[in-house]
Amino acid sequence: MNPIDRLIQAFGKLPGVGQKSAARFAFHILRAPAAEAHELAEAVIRVKTQTQLCSSCLTFTPSNPCRICSDTRREQQTICVVEKPADVSAIEQTGVFRGVYHVLHGLLSPLSGIGPDDLKIDALLTRLRASPATEVIVATNPTVEGEATAMYLATLIRPIGVRLTRLASGIPLGGEVEYASPQTLARAIESRHEVL
Amino acid sequence: MNPIDRLIQAFGKLPGVGQKSAARFAFHILRAPAAEAHELAEAVIRVKTQTQLCSSCLTFTPSNPCRICSDTRREQQTICVVEKPADVSAIEQTGVFRGVYHVLHGLLSPLSGIGPDDLKIDALLTRLRASPATEVIVATNPTVEGEATAMYLATLIRPIGVRLTRLASGIPLGGEVEYASPQTLARAIESRHEVL
Repeated sequence: MNPIDRLIQAFGKLPGVGQKSAARFAFHILRAPAAEAHELAEAVIRVKTQTQLCSSCLTFTPSNPCRICSDTRREQQTICVVEKPADVSAIEQTGVFRGVYHVLHGLLSPLSGIGPDDLKIDALLTRLRASPATEVIVATNPTVEGEATAMYLATLIRPIGVRLTRLASGIPLGGEVEYASPQTLARAIESRHEVL
Repeated sequence: MNPIDRLIQAFGKLPGVGQKSAARFAFHILRAPAAEAHELAEAVIRVKTQTQLCSSCLTFTPSNPCRICSDTRREQQTICVVEKPADVSAIEQTGVFRGVYHVLHGLLSPLSGIGPDDLKIDALLTRLRASPATEVIVATNPTVEGEATAMYLATLIRPIGVRLTRLASGIPLGGEVEYASPQTLARAIESRHEVL
């Protein structure tokens, strides 16, 4: 295959990148300084060779345990369970969470053939039994898969006797009641709270 | 810098890729098979080492002259002038153009400090003088920069005595009169043609 088509094909495997974007990326690389192309290629290789799963929370990390798990100022007894490492980054950016994480690396999805054994659920239970937590926050998406995963986790974690919580769902800040989906609006009504 | 942040930064230099998309690409690479990451890195390096500018039309090509310029079935006397190699790909996909190309590698843009000497205009004139063309189609975008470049090229090419044309502008196929911009609609009215 000609090297331009080959690069377009490689870029096309990135999530959400179609033929047009992949071609735009490839032509950008063709015109970019050799140093920029080299930096991208090397960063792709390095991220695979110099990154591992944190033995505690299972996020991707260059050092083991990861920066968060090894931070003594974080509340090691508050564990936020997320679907994927990108969710860790998103929650870290809020700056409001002081606990630690557990990455499931997926959500239950019977239709796609993803069952409990495909997720890092055993590791979570082992971790909870080894060092008692005061709270487990299930921060999976408010989608069919995310809710199903949260309910499945609840059946396993409740017997351990730890406080189990879920992220709130409702109308996003800056959003409008008029444009919220019926499901979101229903959830917002059901989860309404007192005005203090 | 940690290898994940480094890869996010490298992806963030691709056109139209913000922080969120760059992070999504990086986490995709982290989870992808090593072979896929290696293929992307190698494709990036190969495209830089195994690609050159066609000595005739100046597009990026693995072989010189390029596939189009060396195709004896193409009309070498009809030259379509485009801004960049991606435009060659777009026009080739239509399947209706039987001539050859000339890539300017940019558009005139005084505000960005891009003048005639920054484009491959001299090469075009040299080419036209060396082997006479029957038609030059200026296929730059119908934007301020694209129109200015077309007009500048016209002043240089007209004295050579070659037929000079420009791509039609108007309402895109499948578009609606109601939603066309006033500029587009004005152009469509001015360029109206007989119903045959």
